[in-house]
Amino acid sequence: MTYRAPVRDLIFTLTEVAGLDAVAATGAFPDFDADLTGAVLEAAAQFSEGVLAPLNRVGDQKGSLYANGAVTAAPGFADAYRQFAEGGWTGLSAPTHAGGQQLPKALELAAYETVHAANMAFGLCPMLSLAAIEALEAVGTEAQKTTYLTKLVSGEWTGAMVLTEPQAGSDLGALTATAVPNGDGTYSLTGQKIFVTWGDHDATDNIVHMVLARLPDAPPGPKGISLFLASKYRVKPDGSLGERNAFRPVGVEHKLGIHASPTCVMAYEGATAELVGQPNQGLAHMFVMMNAARLAVGVEGVGIAERAYQQALDYARERRQGRSVWTGEANAPIIDHPDVRRALSVMKAKIAAARALCLSTGVAADLAKHAATDEERRRWKSREDLFTPLAKAWSTDVGCDVASMGVQVHGGMGFIEETGAAQYYRDARIAPIYEGTNGIQAMDLVGRKLGQDGGQAARDLIADMKATLALLPRLYSGKPLERFATAIEAVQDATFWLLDRKAAADGAADVLAGADAYLTLMGDVVGGWMLAKGALAARATLDAGEGDPAWLEGRIALYEVYAANVLGHASSRLAAVGQGGDLLQRMSPDVLAG
Amino acid sequence: MTYRAPVRDLIFTLTEVAGLDAVAATGAFPDFDADLTGAVLEAAAQFSEGVLAPLNRVGDQKGSLYANGAVTAAPGFADAYRQFAEGGWTGLSAPTHAGGQQLPKALELAAYETVHAANMAFGLCPMLSLAAIEALEAVGTEAQKTTYLTKLVSGEWTGAMVLTEPQAGSDLGALTATAVPNGDGTYSLTGQKIFVTWGDHDATDNIVHMVLARLPDAPPGPKGISLFLASKYRVKPDGSLGERNAFRPVGVEHKLGIHASPTCVMAYEGATAELVGQPNQGLAHMFVMMNAARLAVGVEGVGIAERAYQQALDYARERRQGRSVWTGEANAPIIDHPDVRRALSVMKAKIAAARALCLSTGVAADLAKHAATDEERRRWKSREDLFTPLAKAWSTDVGCDVASMGVQVHGGMGFIEETGAAQYYRDARIAPIYEGTNGIQAMDLVGRKLGQDGGQAARDLIADMKATLALLPRLYSGKPLERFATAIEAVQDATFWLLDRKAAADGAADVLAGADAYLTLMGDVVGGWMLAKGALAARATLDAGEGDPAWLEGRIALYEVYAANVLGHASSRLAAVGQGGDLLQRMSPDVLAG
Repeated sequence: MTYRAPVRDLIFTLTEVAGLDAVAATGAFPDFDADLTGAVLEAAAQFSEGVLAPLNRVGDQKGSLYANGAVTAAPGFADAYRQFAEGGWTGLSAPTHAGGQQLPKALELAAYETVHAANMAFGLCPMLSLAAIEALEAVGTEAQKTTYLTKLVSGEWTGAMVLTEPQAGSDLGALTATAVPNGDGTYSLTGQKIFVTWGDHDATDNIVHMVLARLPDAPPGPKGISLFLASKYRVKPDGSLGERNAFRPVGVEHKLGIHASPTCVMAYEGATAELVGQPNQGLAHMFVMMNAARLAVGVEGVGIAERAYQQALDYARERRQGRSVWTGEANAPIIDHPDVRRALSVMKAKIAAARALCLSTGVAADLAKHAATDEERRRWKSREDLFTPLAKAWSTDVGCDVASMGVQVHGGMGFIEETGAAQYYRDARIAPIYEGTNGIQAMDLVGRKLGQDGGQAARDLIADMKATLALLPRLYSGKPLERFATAIEAVQDATFWLLDRKAAADGAADVLAGADAYLTLMGDVVGGWMLAKGALAARATLDAGEGDPAWLEGRIALYEVYAANVLGHASSRLAAVGQGGDLLQRMSPDVLAG
Repeated sequence: MTYRAPVRDLIFTLTEVAGLDAVAATGAFPDFDADLTGAVLEAAAQFSEGVLAPLNRVGDQKGSLYANGAVTAAPGFADAYRQFAEGGWTGLSAPTHAGGQQLPKALELAAYETVHAANMAFGLCPMLSLAAIEALEAVGTEAQKTTYLTKLVSGEWTGAMVLTEPQAGSDLGALTATAVPNGDGTYSLTGQKIFVTWGDHDATDNIVHMVLARLPDAPPGPKGISLFLASKYRVKPDGSLGERNAFRPVGVEHKLGIHASPTCVMAYEGATAELVGQPNQGLAHMFVMMNAARLAVGVEGVGIAERAYQQALDYARERRQGRSVWTGEANAPIIDHPDVRRALSVMKAKIAAARALCLSTGVAADLAKHAATDEERRRWKSREDLFTPLAKAWSTDVGCDVASMGVQVHGGMGFIEETGAAQYYRDARIAPIYEGTNGIQAMDLVGRKLGQDGGQAARDLIADMKATLALLPRLYSGKPLERFATAIEAVQDATFWLLDRKAAADGAADVLAGADAYLTLMGDVVGGWMLAKGALAARATLDAGEGDPAWLEGRIALYEVYAANVLGHASSRLAAVGQGGDLLQRMSPDVLAG
């Protein structure tokens, strides 16, 4: 049941696949070098394994507690959070001027994978602080940065994203919370919000709420939303805490999983708030937080998958049943049965692909800010934009899929809560839903990201994948090679078809009908690309006589497993990409109910 | 939250797809005719909707209770069970000589789909009685039939299957429970068993345990296992209940789902038992029960998927978010967004395919017993054998998949337990595990079923599918037609490759490495065949000017949805079928742990 942070995998993926060296080369991270990658990840591993993982079960069983208008964190969580903040983990990527360590986002994501894997419910708390940090850094005033940003970076306070209302979920434009000017530069915030993760707790003295609401004269819909900051306790000019603000939790949800993450219903009753950024630009500002959070949720998918995989692997090595066709052993460990070996191999391959996708998105985000030229920054920004919905949706689907396979490897024991596999299956299920459902991600991909610059980001990606394909005959021939070629063609065909339909006056429904399949296709193929790059790097290291040969050979086999079990599906996804809106219209509500 | 039994779908599937008429034509079911199908299903619908569905939530929340060596069923369950038995639902397919109604198995399965959908935890109780009935009917003595079978058929007592021990799950050959002759024809049964579904409860006065154990002189392994019957209370010669037998539950498992189904740890401490069937033939006898139970579990998958689908459909029709690209409505029901419509359409198509697969397996089972000639019975038996692992595994995968999509359609509300979608997701997860994991089903398919008569069953199936393909141009052209043709070819290629590898001295690991993918391929394609047959029948009914045109047109669209979203994947599964054992061996335990 212990968790072992995959430090070697994380370093390999960052350096050999995602291209962290290019981030270091920008010079934007003065304290960062290759040695630091290992040091940070080893320290993260130690904390996640030693402090967070042991609290995962009790957090599931006891959960957070709501009583009398306040939330108490699950047993041990408040203390663990304080250790986490003291260790500097809340400020890894924050700028040094705010007290952070100004390390690359990609490295922070890698470190946080271990946090989410060890304790997904815990990880949400700092994840949301990081999102608030991003927003304040981007659009906060100097005073807001002084007052709030530094406290979020130090981890003394935590942040919360406050968006959803009962009638406004995927469509935030429908929200009705209001903020009325008080005449002194502050606003009076009123409304009820739901799904506020870690909206209240007792782990820190104060909580900074980033709240979407409407000014009195705001236009209706998404263009009339502004971003506000409301602090649980008023902050006095000297930085000390004053009176309690007029908002409070009125309940926490009883959820399928992540029981230790309090999902609050919050009531704002004339709470004092500050405007953050420009009036009526709230959605745009929130998307600064949201994009970072989406990538972080993708990393959650990787983390929970890794945790589920490790437990299934341990079980398969210990549990003995039946004779192995390989070893001939009569009462063999089930890992020596081909079908179990297949399941574990596919799990490992998907995790490695999702990890590389997320960390590559992190590298793209770093380079989008810090690459040397405008042109390079623009290109990396396009890659980040294209990859963010993939990283979020594809990786969280992998999280659910691998967690489910993990249950299955355990057989009957997997269904027993004490075993632990079931918790991962329950916890993992939230990740495809929050921070924009995976359906919203697919619509974002085909609706916004694919169309930018006439599809240039997708064309660039296809060109990059073809460049890797050209190198692949060094390693593979026959099917493993053909499958990547066919898969790239499928991405190309699907992309061109969608761009065509996007350009057509009557094409909108066709594009949306194929959105989910296109996202899956892209994720499957980009994942294959990632593993192919890893295999090539492993070969180069082997050829140089360096590294652990068995481990490096494993990376080469991993691509082949993925090619047979995942890449093989790429071309078949074209059928669903192109199914068209007309067919779905024939499946009318009456037909569906009939 | 209400459940509406899909009576029209069930009747259509039984009569137009599965071929229930051929069962009626055998004359083996004297009281059965087409009118009775509707009457039985309407009555089942009424009971499932009115009595069982309302208990589903409380069963999940309260669960069954273990205390002081006895299990109390969840609130309301004991009373519901007694009504169920009084309604005659435990004896639908049992022979009239035992007090049953001697109706076709296929009709019983259709009726039970509504039971499992309404309340999966409840349905397990009669499902296991039906399995015990099958075994006693097949190999019980006349005295056993008189004493036990009639009480199981009437539902006055329930049955339990008692197989698993901690060290003997998938490999029952490792079990160690013993049965020592008492010298009076009875045996003294000793051992500890786990995963005994409804092993104890307070819904009936007595419970009949069908237990696998070893005789003192039995050979080791699977050939030394015998089947015993142990009754919770001794039965006196006059049929009344005597003293309590020496076995008892020592606990119930705390599970991910089906909380109202008590999963017992049972201790047998010199319990008095009778031998059922022949000594050392226990596994063969148990497989009579097991095969029926496997098909019934497939139907559970269909039922839980239907329930999850209905709730998601209701939510999608009520929940409003964002502008519809079809209707232009600003705050449209989410069913009018193409991606949600796609999800619901795919869910419906998969359910229809799984339902038809299971009911066709039921028809094959009926005809395997009752068709006119030896040759026909042999042929139907082969079809039943081939379809049973498909029905079990593919349908339960559909159950999990659809339940997960149901959560997703709900967005954030899906993760909240009060919504109900999460319960289906949790409940559904057991079905791929019990009665032989889906991995075991895949091994059964490629190991035993495929090889019978040199693959004749698969060849017959392929020929039948080609016959339907030849009719399909009446309805479809282009892609929907091509996809079925390609899919059949994929089944053919995969089958021949596997038969080849089976024949090779070094092929065993290759066959097992491809087992899971082959089962999925077969299920996907057979499912498509089922929907194609349904579409052809719908067209014929339309052409005859009969039926509800909109509903029948819906059946025609349903195949197209399936063709684009599921059948399209068939050929790509070949990659995984043929991945080979060598590749998986390269993914050694060390590589997997590295």
